[in-house]
Amino acid sequence: MAIPAAAPAKIAEPTPGVATVIAELTARWPSQTSTATAVRDHHANHLTWYPPQMPDAVFFASSTADVQSVMQLCAAHRVPIIPYGTGTSVEGQINAPFGGITIDLSRMNAVLSVEAEDLTCTVQAGVTRKQINEHLRDKGLFFPIDPGADASLGGMAATRASGTNAVRYGTMRENVIALTAVMPDGTIVRTARRARKSSAGYDLTRLLVGSEGTLGVITQVTLRLYGIPESIAAAVCPFPTLDAACNVAIGAIQAGVPLARVELLDELQIRACNIYSKTALAETPTLFVEFHGTPASVDEQVALFKTIAKEHGGGDFQWSTRPEERSKLWQARHDAAYSCMVLRPGAKVTATDVCVPISRLAECIAVTKQDLADHGLFGPIVGHVGDGNFHVAVLFNPGDADEFKRMKDFSERLAMRAIVMDGTCTGEHGVGQGKIAYLSAEFGAGLDLMRQIKRSIDPDNIMNPGKIFSA
Amino acid sequence: MAIPAAAPAKIAEPTPGVATVIAELTARWPSQTSTATAVRDHHANHLTWYPPQMPDAVFFASSTADVQSVMQLCAAHRVPIIPYGTGTSVEGQINAPFGGITIDLSRMNAVLSVEAEDLTCTVQAGVTRKQINEHLRDKGLFFPIDPGADASLGGMAATRASGTNAVRYGTMRENVIALTAVMPDGTIVRTARRARKSSAGYDLTRLLVGSEGTLGVITQVTLRLYGIPESIAAAVCPFPTLDAACNVAIGAIQAGVPLARVELLDELQIRACNIYSKTALAETPTLFVEFHGTPASVDEQVALFKTIAKEHGGGDFQWSTRPEERSKLWQARHDAAYSCMVLRPGAKVTATDVCVPISRLAECIAVTKQDLADHGLFGPIVGHVGDGNFHVAVLFNPGDADEFKRMKDFSERLAMRAIVMDGTCTGEHGVGQGKIAYLSAEFGAGLDLMRQIKRSIDPDNIMNPGKIFSA
Repeated sequence: MAIPAAAPAKIAEPTPGVATVIAELTARWPSQTSTATAVRDHHANHLTWYPPQMPDAVFFASSTADVQSVMQLCAAHRVPIIPYGTGTSVEGQINAPFGGITIDLSRMNAVLSVEAEDLTCTVQAGVTRKQINEHLRDKGLFFPIDPGADASLGGMAATRASGTNAVRYGTMRENVIALTAVMPDGTIVRTARRARKSSAGYDLTRLLVGSEGTLGVITQVTLRLYGIPESIAAAVCPFPTLDAACNVAIGAIQAGVPLARVELLDELQIRACNIYSKTALAETPTLFVEFHGTPASVDEQVALFKTIAKEHGGGDFQWSTRPEERSKLWQARHDAAYSCMVLRPGAKVTATDVCVPISRLAECIAVTKQDLADHGLFGPIVGHVGDGNFHVAVLFNPGDADEFKRMKDFSERLAMRAIVMDGTCTGEHGVGQGKIAYLSAEFGAGLDLMRQIKRSIDPDNIMNPGKIFSA
Repeated sequence: MAIPAAAPAKIAEPTPGVATVIAELTARWPSQTSTATAVRDHHANHLTWYPPQMPDAVFFASSTADVQSVMQLCAAHRVPIIPYGTGTSVEGQINAPFGGITIDLSRMNAVLSVEAEDLTCTVQAGVTRKQINEHLRDKGLFFPIDPGADASLGGMAATRASGTNAVRYGTMRENVIALTAVMPDGTIVRTARRARKSSAGYDLTRLLVGSEGTLGVITQVTLRLYGIPESIAAAVCPFPTLDAACNVAIGAIQAGVPLARVELLDELQIRACNIYSKTALAETPTLFVEFHGTPASVDEQVALFKTIAKEHGGGDFQWSTRPEERSKLWQARHDAAYSCMVLRPGAKVTATDVCVPISRLAECIAVTKQDLADHGLFGPIVGHVGDGNFHVAVLFNPGDADEFKRMKDFSERLAMRAIVMDGTCTGEHGVGQGKIAYLSAEFGAGLDLMRQIKRSIDPDNIMNPGKIFSA
């Protein structure tokens, strides 16, 4: 067995104080505390091949005050704390390599306020992106960040998530206005007020966005909202080559077309979609695009995009502006994450996540595809190409030690290739346990600065230890 | 004399090591070091009423390596370091209350690279915004952030500056992709790579943007660029009341009009403009607006904006799409900062800078205007109203102790009013020396977290001491 799936649930002996903490949690909050193996296991990583590592107990928080109490207790006994939203992270962020207490925020799922006039809302960290969008629909507003999974907004903030809409609306970095977080010393911090901009002091919001629970537990998030566009047009367009598809995305961005979404699926991914989603798309590199605006501006965007696509050999467009048709048209893209498994039943999947300057994107994808072939590996490619971000979902046989090693070596070469191209080893998944090894190459002395900040805020290393940093 | 203009050049005795540092600087870099009083005085604050506080010497850096050497020398002797770009900050950021060495970066004015395909460029910190835009013009690109003064891009990053274009393009927070900075221990940190997004580790870029030289010296900046819009339309529109003008700006934003600029000038400011810029505008609250896009989308934006303006009693529009005419139309707005002095020759001016959620903007301006009147104070208002940010330029007689006190009390009430409205004491000027007192009200425990980060990175407090924090 190549994958260390038989690894122990945690890589260290229990912290001595953990029994004391669990006893206290069970006594004070019996209905919110669980040490059941099934519950603990459910809170470990299962979405990707990283071995699951269970916490010693799970605490279901119902308020910021709850989180504060539990963190003070854990801090007093130096017991690790692992924040948990919906468990949809893919880099092992929710694993508990040193045991400890997982704080599950999913019961903190109240929308606290919506200020429609200001285009802002404040939610508890456990509210999911679909839930907030349901809540906002009647008001004609929406929150655009869509990482695929129905993740919690606290988790999305902690991971600096983005997804298909980022090319137009930015990532969680641009769309979180303020946070409430409990720090490891039990202090409750509100990072900013609700103004659209401020130059008052250090940017605590952006410090916590992307910190993956290693600095504090996010309990509330204030978000920037947008009016639902008057008109939305969606399209699917096949291309003769990956290069052509990439260059159309790049060309459209350089021409100032405000693309709302521009997604690349390679021929393998289209084949998977055709099987899984029962579509009949030509099995060739394909762009899925979406345009937002007034009817006239959408028409104009579409016309300009068509011109650029045609110049690069783009084939027959399928268009739609009606909601049901749009959904149907985009179904294949929405199912991409689930569909790739049909290409190799029984295989495990690893999700890579590099992001490079868009001028290097076509080259990076081409070299990467060749690298796959050269090493006898197999995996479809899906890309948020407007951002220079793409995923190779390598499908591998977990029982084949050699293939497992080739997959890992490939992933490493891919991460380093992106870094050499002035890009990043992770565009939107975060570091978790899986990308730790590349941060030194990506940041150099900056990594020491990150460690310095971590040590200053969490000197006992109780906040999600073993994530971002090796320990 | 009410203003402590007779205050000593610095508020503390020279650091014992400063003589050693100056001797070493003079020996190693004779042409880059000055202790001349005129040079030192030129590097102290003179733009606002805060008393100038000179450094002990000024060092003119020519490279990141220079900055590193000088910082290592200063660190060894615990001598304060004050970074200086163009000296256009307005909250005393360049003052040297504890003496020390000012590092002037204006000679580091090289554009290092422009990646037109990626819409990025990298510049040395001393490059100014006008310089980079001159450089980019032939390529059809521009950098939108316009704080009024021709500030250096390093200084703009350090202050988290914004200005008239922020409503459309964001602030320095959104438009700095990466930075190179020298930290107080002499480490050179590159905060990020050039990809459009990343979720790798802590957001060091955003930690340094807005840190006002208190954590390190920014020596290079990588910026996000934009294509020069195909069509630009500018307009000036008078309104019967401030309230009406504010509500049009808010209404347009809520309706999704992608305004590139929306500036409010009150009737006093218009009077000042008429005198200073020899315009003949109606002396009533007026919006200056600008629209960017394709010709068709600009037409559409203009039509929608006109409809909203008309609903609120907007008067005769003056429009222009031709460059020279646009400049002429906007001349009054561009001259606003200089023109207000004509309203009260000999007076000093204080620039306030609050920013509130836009739903509270009209109310905040109205109450503030009443407060001015109630306390016998006088000052025009200019606002970046799309962001909820406005400046009251209080004109006061520096020889009148009572008026000086009323001005200071007014400024304090204004800052606290904004904070109570869930806004900030400073939208774009930074904290410097002038807004320190309000951070506790604005951030609560968050201020302790900022101090913790400051202590961790700069334990000897040599980086621009007396800014953001009281010492």
